Amino acid sequence: MKKFMNDPKKYVSDMLKGIAMANAAKVRYVPEYNLIMRVDAPNADKVSVMSGCGSGHEPAHVMQVGEGMLDAACAGNVFAAPPADFVYQTTKLVASPKGVLHLLNNYTGDTMSFELGREMAEADGIQVRTVVIDDDVAVKDSVHTVGRRGLAGNFFVIKAVGAAAERGASLEELEKLGNRVVCATRTMGVALTGCTPPAKGTPIFSLASDEMEMGVGIHGEPGRKRTKLAPANAIVDELFEAIFTDLPYKAGDDVAVMINGMGGTPISELYILYGHAHELAEKNGLRVKRSYIGEYCTSLEMAGFSLSLLKLDAELEDLLAAPAQAVVRIY
Amino acid sequence: MKKFMNDPKKYVSDMLKGIAMANAAKVRYVPEYNLIMRVDAPNADKVSVMSGCGSGHEPAHVMQVGEGMLDAACAGNVFAAPPADFVYQTTKLVASPKGVLHLLNNYTGDTMSFELGREMAEADGIQVRTVVIDDDVAVKDSVHTVGRRGLAGNFFVIKAVGAAAERGASLEELEKLGNRVVCATRTMGVALTGCTPPAKGTPIFSLASDEMEMGVGIHGEPGRKRTKLAPANAIVDELFEAIFTDLPYKAGDDVAVMINGMGGTPISELYILYGHAHELAEKNGLRVKRSYIGEYCTSLEMAGFSLSLLKLDAELEDLLAAPAQAVVRIY
Repeated sequence: MKKFMNDPKKYVSDMLKGIAMANAAKVRYVPEYNLIMRVDAPNADKVSVMSGCGSGHEPAHVMQVGEGMLDAACAGNVFAAPPADFVYQTTKLVASPKGVLHLLNNYTGDTMSFELGREMAEADGIQVRTVVIDDDVAVKDSVHTVGRRGLAGNFFVIKAVGAAAERGASLEELEKLGNRVVCATRTMGVALTGCTPPAKGTPIFSLASDEMEMGVGIHGEPGRKRTKLAPANAIVDELFEAIFTDLPYKAGDDVAVMINGMGGTPISELYILYGHAHELAEKNGLRVKRSYIGEYCTSLEMAGFSLSLLKLDAELEDLLAAPAQAVVRIY
Repeated sequence: MKKFMNDPKKYVSDMLKGIAMANAAKVRYVPEYNLIMRVDAPNADKVSVMSGCGSGHEPAHVMQVGEGMLDAACAGNVFAAPPADFVYQTTKLVASPKGVLHLLNNYTGDTMSFELGREMAEADGIQVRTVVIDDDVAVKDSVHTVGRRGLAGNFFVIKAVGAAAERGASLEELEKLGNRVVCATRTMGVALTGCTPPAKGTPIFSLASDEMEMGVGIHGEPGRKRTKLAPANAIVDELFEAIFTDLPYKAGDDVAVMINGMGGTPISELYILYGHAHELAEKNGLRVKRSYIGEYCTSLEMAGFSLSLLKLDAELEDLLAAPAQAVVRIY
């Protein structure tokens, strides 16, 4: 294992400390709960929007805190859901009279923590609603999931809901909006390599030098099949077909297209992949209104990427284009 | 070699096509010269600022084209300088009556192409000035260089000069500004792994599982020493010491701090490294006014990073903070 770190036990806290130091004017770090929150949260005039997930998926979600994005995010250990108490404490710290919206990816550990955390917060009189993100088309259930998994499409939910929250939308409106984005988003990923959680010290899975995992999960969960490495265009063809036919999208739809790098894939390759995804979208009559190429939800140093499509309407397009500030750069 | 690509011969052109498709309103692609340029260049009211380098260092420089940044950049093959003719043609395409500024990194291939390209452009009556970036403190000369090499500090030069060009600075003023930023910037890098150019198919160098290359160049050139992998803080200590004492920076200086990922390093690790760099800066009396954490100048999928310091004054701080739009996200 070769990583830039000090001690596997301090991997998450050292990272969170770095985030806070680089963004002292925007966010603060609460070490007790692995929590990054906006310095100006809670704001009584808006619903607070928060998320949380295992570490190792950065920028998701601790680096997506900021104006027009999340009010707070709490992190678990690498690839482990944040404990329910972290979710509860985070909810309390950002509690607004307008309520708190929980955004989370559909993994068993995360849903358990957020359900319990919500119950505890509600017992304190805090109004909470929940949106569960399950944009992955690859598999129906998986080792860590009942139902579909949440992947990089979570960015679209955070961006749209975050922008609407700034504009004063109510808790119910945001819940509805979040679910609307989830319903319009589809994602599928592929990996060329595994990755190594710091405390484990060995790769979570291995692939031969000519193999790839189609439909991989963000914790390295198996996808649809392990198959021979193919040219970039052929891989994009297969992912696009799986996504396009799932919603289904149809000719004339306006869409946002995302190529999400999983951590170890150079940005040059992401643009090679994007070019063909854009061509396929146009060939199928989709109008590409917005493009996202970069890292949105990673798996440590895994070499891989996911393709997402979001069907747009005028409201969503406007929300995605709204200004936002976060720890990481936003389009 | 596991890469998302179609054909090694099309690696660069497929990438450039993807860049143009994702940014059709902002930039256009001229395939004959591996060239990305602003759709609104040249602008007769401003100096045109251009750069160029081998591919594989993205976002440098083809993804750094846009308002407040570069007017154009031309790319060579992976790790190969753009031919002199590309530099010449790019200069002609963006030629403004106010002149053209060439920004380049100090590598023998690049300096030769830019010198020849400049001569050809000047023979056509185009006014050209040149700023050569050599921010690397690791080695004095190297396999590909007479003098110090250019590393990720080139971003600071592009950002400052790009902003000043938008404000109407003259060619002479921009040349002076660019050189001022170069003189105030110091960088040193370290690699945990090599990387594999697509057409070569094998790694440019190899490191044992417990080794790192201190002072590595962006084409994998040897640095100061090959040594045992150390904790993140110890690595940052060594890089910081080398940089800090070189300018030298001194207590009371305002600085920008950059942790640049080389392509295969997860952003979580970059923030772990940043945290300690920030601590060291403060411990040495520096005031960290701006922070840059992400990928600015990469080496394909190499796992590694570089640390840069830029000494700020009020003018530079203002130029770095000026709005900018490019293919990639800018802080």
